[in-house]
Amino acid sequence: MSTLRAVVLCCTLKPSPAESSAELLGREVLAALADHDVDGEVIRVVDHDVRFGVSVDEGDGDAWPSIRTRLMAAHLLVIATPIWMGQPSSVCKMVLERLDAELSETDDEGRLRTFGKVAAVAVVGNEDGAHHVTAEVLQALNDVGFTVAANGSTYWVGEAMGKVDYRDAGPKPDTTGSATRTLAANAAHLAHLLAERPYPAG
Amino acid sequence: MSTLRAVVLCCTLKPSPAESSAELLGREVLAALADHDVDGEVIRVVDHDVRFGVSVDEGDGDAWPSIRTRLMAAHLLVIATPIWMGQPSSVCKMVLERLDAELSETDDEGRLRTFGKVAAVAVVGNEDGAHHVTAEVLQALNDVGFTVAANGSTYWVGEAMGKVDYRDAGPKPDTTGSATRTLAANAAHLAHLLAERPYPAG
Amino acid sequence: MSTLRAVVLCCTLKPSPAESSAELLGREVLAALADHDVDGEVIRVVDHDVRFGVSVDEGDGDAWPSIRTRLMAAHLLVIATPIWMGQPSSVCKMVLERLDAELSETDDEGRLRTFGKVAAVAVVGNEDGAHHVTAEVLQALNDVGFTVAANGSTYWVGEAMGKVDYRDAGPKPDTTGSATRTLAANAAHLAHLLAERPYPAG
Amino acid sequence: MSTLRAVVLCCTLKPSPAESSAELLGREVLAALADHDVDGEVIRVVDHDVRFGVSVDEGDGDAWPSIRTRLMAAHLLVIATPIWMGQPSSVCKMVLERLDAELSETDDEGRLRTFGKVAAVAVVGNEDGAHHVTAEVLQALNDVGFTVAANGSTYWVGEAMGKVDYRDAGPKPDTTGSATRTLAANAAHLAHLLAERPYPAG
Repeated sequence: MSTLRAVVLCCTLKPSPAESSAELLGREVLAALADHDVDGEVIRVVDHDVRFGVSVDEGDGDAWPSIRTRLMAAHLLVIATPIWMGQPSSVCKMVLERLDAELSETDDEGRLRTFGKVAAVAVVGNEDGAHHVTAEVLQALNDVGFTVAANGSTYWVGEAMGKVDYRDAGPKPDTTGSATRTLAANAAHLAHLLAERPYPAG
Repeated sequence: MSTLRAVVLCCTLKPSPAESSAELLGREVLAALADHDVDGEVIRVVDHDVRFGVSVDEGDGDAWPSIRTRLMAAHLLVIATPIWMGQPSSVCKMVLERLDAELSETDDEGRLRTFGKVAAVAVVGNEDGAHHVTAEVLQALNDVGFTVAANGSTYWVGEAMGKVDYRDAGPKPDTTGSATRTLAANAAHLAHLLAERPYPAG
Repeated sequence: MSTLRAVVLCCTLKPSPAESSAELLGREVLAALADHDVDGEVIRVVDHDVRFGVSVDEGDGDAWPSIRTRLMAAHLLVIATPIWMGQPSSVCKMVLERLDAELSETDDEGRLRTFGKVAAVAVVGNEDGAHHVTAEVLQALNDVGFTVAANGSTYWVGEAMGKVDYRDAGPKPDTTGSATRTLAANAAHLAHLLAERPYPAG
Repeated sequence: MSTLRAVVLCCTLKPSPAESSAELLGREVLAALADHDVDGEVIRVVDHDVRFGVSVDEGDGDAWPSIRTRLMAAHLLVIATPIWMGQPSSVCKMVLERLDAELSETDDEGRLRTFGKVAAVAVVGNEDGAHHVTAEVLQALNDVGFTVAANGSTYWVGEAMGKVDYRDAGPKPDTTGSATRTLAANAAHLAHLLAERPYPAG
């Protein structure tokens, strides 16, 4: 079984070196994937000059094409996003919009280039919103050709109207850690299967 | 300023006398409204034989028409719903679908009969989902003619993947209580305004 | 390659023999799956006495356990639902809530009994709402252990505020038919893979 | 009755002078508001250097503070947004995140500075997604203190998987025009009421 590759797109609003709970959870997913023959990297999107748009390249210094190259070489995509107002971050939405362009990108046999890639979601917030963020991200990614393994998300949020960050919440609750481990095991299994036995040509 | 009337539709899945955190929060909203010249009642929908459908009366013993009569006599509607899987309960959705029929019900001047009624939402769950439930309920109610006062929702949820109920969570956090009081003050103010000065005829 | 089995749960609000566009699209998915060694059946949920609840058996004549038996023997689950107010039907939500119970149901090796089952969604409405319905259904089903193949949904809606039903819309647009065929090919491929090579034990 | 002021924030992804259907519908809302003693302006957000963030001023040339000044002087806020993947645009989400900062901004009597402002939504897309976009935008704006008049949204989308833009769809369907007129009449009525009789101090 060959080693596969994952890209974690961290969708915090804050450029480096600001700390990001979304990045922390994204890195935990990557660490869990390493137990299943998957290596990879975390890209903090807002550190790059990604443009608003729905094409693969918006031109004029747009940083998306280089991120896209790394994504296209990977077998797994993890979207790690904070929650704002119960919803995915604007940076996360910007990424999804750029991925909308994949609906026009096919391989020699007419399949979307995303076919065979497995998507997963990691969501963090002070409070409330993880299920809805997961719903939005999985629907958009599945729309454009990503596959979703059983239990394809992990998350942490505090109690209603709370103000504590995941990175400050102390010893990680086993709930989130356990969800992260299940996500990694299932997503890696499915990515390995699809690497060997791709979807049929259309 | 005359006393106005509120109906709280509690959308728990469990018939009485089972305890319901959604009903508890709904009653707290009603108590807060009482400070603003609003009295009212709580109806636990699942105790009545409400039918699936999108008409005002599905016939054959349907209990919706009698609930609707009480609702039509009220100035405020509060939907109190539990969260399941990060989403509104099926009973809540059944209520919203029955209210869809109001799009065809107009007064002598061509206005929807819901115009002038103020809607509010109270959401409880063990964990995660309140913002999305609020979004779904407010959109549907606003679609069919209800008005939404500033800060028209209140909620409680526990930490991610928690299992504690609101009714067992001990002393209520001031966060939820404070949101409930703001909701009540604003919703009552707006309902009083609209009772005096209705929307113009179409 | 052995023949697999699909169950389509049709979540229209209307009991048989009323015509249902959701059932029509659900049957089209089943027909498309037949081209990929999958046979199955359509169950119109509202024809059965399914109770509100979040357990596998609510007792007292509850019809869910018998539907669940058929579902547990299947490899694919297709949720076919109408849109009401831009959202999934209450019957669909009732089904999702019953499936929430699967989070406590594991096999001898600690895996959810839903692991290895592939879920897909078919959505119809007079107008607007298919993406959001898909998001809600896929998130809930993925939460409780279903896997989602690339492009795991198909849908039809008319123009904004339209009133035409899918079943009356005349020759089916190739858009919906094409989405249905892709869904079937990918979902069947993934179900066959997972039947041979299940997710690892936890 | 004094003339009130509206700001339409157009959330297209495309800078001027590219044509925008969202801007077209936003301008139609503004024209409809003019019949009810409301004047105003359209701001295309992406033409300004608005930064990602959740504060009132992200510093360093951030264009939000000047947009915010115009918004704070207005009585109505209209969010005009395109649909991408069934969801609000990333630019729309960026605006909502900037408005999240309003939760900390109060007047001398402890009320949010948004209290008394009426929000409305105008949504356009080639196909599907308007109800969900409306839900997300109204929930977020209501959360941070905006009031929503009965029928506070208008929209246009084409048939499932369509590719025609609103601006090219020919004679506007009376459906969208009618919704726009109702939105304007109700939102203006409510803004006038709240200008005279503000919410009570907390």
